[in-house]
Amino acid sequence: MTTDTQSLIQASIKTIPDYPKKGILFRDVTSLMEDPQAYQATIQLLVEKYQSMGFTKVVGTEARGFLFGAPLALELGLGFVPVRKPGKLPRETVSQSYELEYGTDVLEIHTDAIKAGDKVLVVDDLLATGGTIEATVKLIRQLGGEVTDAAFVINLPEIGGEEKLKALGLNVYSICEFAGH
Amino acid sequence: MTTDTQSLIQASIKTIPDYPKKGILFRDVTSLMEDPQAYQATIQLLVEKYQSMGFTKVVGTEARGFLFGAPLALELGLGFVPVRKPGKLPRETVSQSYELEYGTDVLEIHTDAIKAGDKVLVVDDLLATGGTIEATVKLIRQLGGEVTDAAFVINLPEIGGEEKLKALGLNVYSICEFAGH
Repeated sequence: MTTDTQSLIQASIKTIPDYPKKGILFRDVTSLMEDPQAYQATIQLLVEKYQSMGFTKVVGTEARGFLFGAPLALELGLGFVPVRKPGKLPRETVSQSYELEYGTDVLEIHTDAIKAGDKVLVVDDLLATGGTIEATVKLIRQLGGEVTDAAFVINLPEIGGEEKLKALGLNVYSICEFAGH
Repeated sequence: MTTDTQSLIQASIKTIPDYPKKGILFRDVTSLMEDPQAYQATIQLLVEKYQSMGFTKVVGTEARGFLFGAPLALELGLGFVPVRKPGKLPRETVSQSYELEYGTDVLEIHTDAIKAGDKVLVVDDLLATGGTIEATVKLIRQLGGEVTDAAFVINLPEIGGEEKLKALGLNVYSICEFAGH
């Protein structure tokens, strides 16, 4: 079911054709953030969904995951933990590689930022292949954290990331979906 | 004057010696964000300072500026505009280079994200040389936006960024200061 709020949020997301390459329809959350009503509604919707579920931490991935995960953590009264590219976090980290279309990349998290028994909500702007969130979940679980839920503003269901994350035992929620790649 | 709230915030910031290289005392805002009380107090303090000043947009620089600028924009009911590294923003952009210790780097902003007459508050986590914020101010002014204020969680006054930004006509505010580089 799509509510009026979800429609408002979806309508605020511009589509950029042929970015970053020909044939791709890029869904642009920066236009959502430029619209204070849509941006506030996005965070409020996530707060209502996740506020009574017993989470102890919110994790967001660099850089667009910060734009939704950090405000959500603040509203839920939880700590926010960033997952970043290598060399960006100053304390001791653990690393996880993941596959890109061509080659691999690596994500890191502070070793002391997740404690055994933490119940962690993972947040990102967009679910495509699910590769970065799969790596993020592995990092959190490696540190003894429990991850049951991943939240996205946008899901691109044709790419198949939702199935990949469900196979990891996650509940997957997105505010809106777009067709295409 | 340092208030109890400012002391709470400052105490939540860990110092990492010799990161990213020997002799540097790195001030780590990720530890602030892991502490929900300190993180909420940081945003609340900025809200109280800037809520009645007539701003129309908040701009934050990739990536740590997103962590303070975006929640502040949401609380102020203003749009949030990201300034990013090259190739990250999908719509038409303008670019500005700035000097690093060795070499230069470039920042971009969406051309249509700032309108002539916008009153823009610039937010970042840490003021050191002021180079990235100087570039950000130039981008906003190039698009016809007015920039009068820059807000930081941390200022390192010995490095001299505050003087650089004051010379651009900015009011500079930081929640806390640390000695050293």
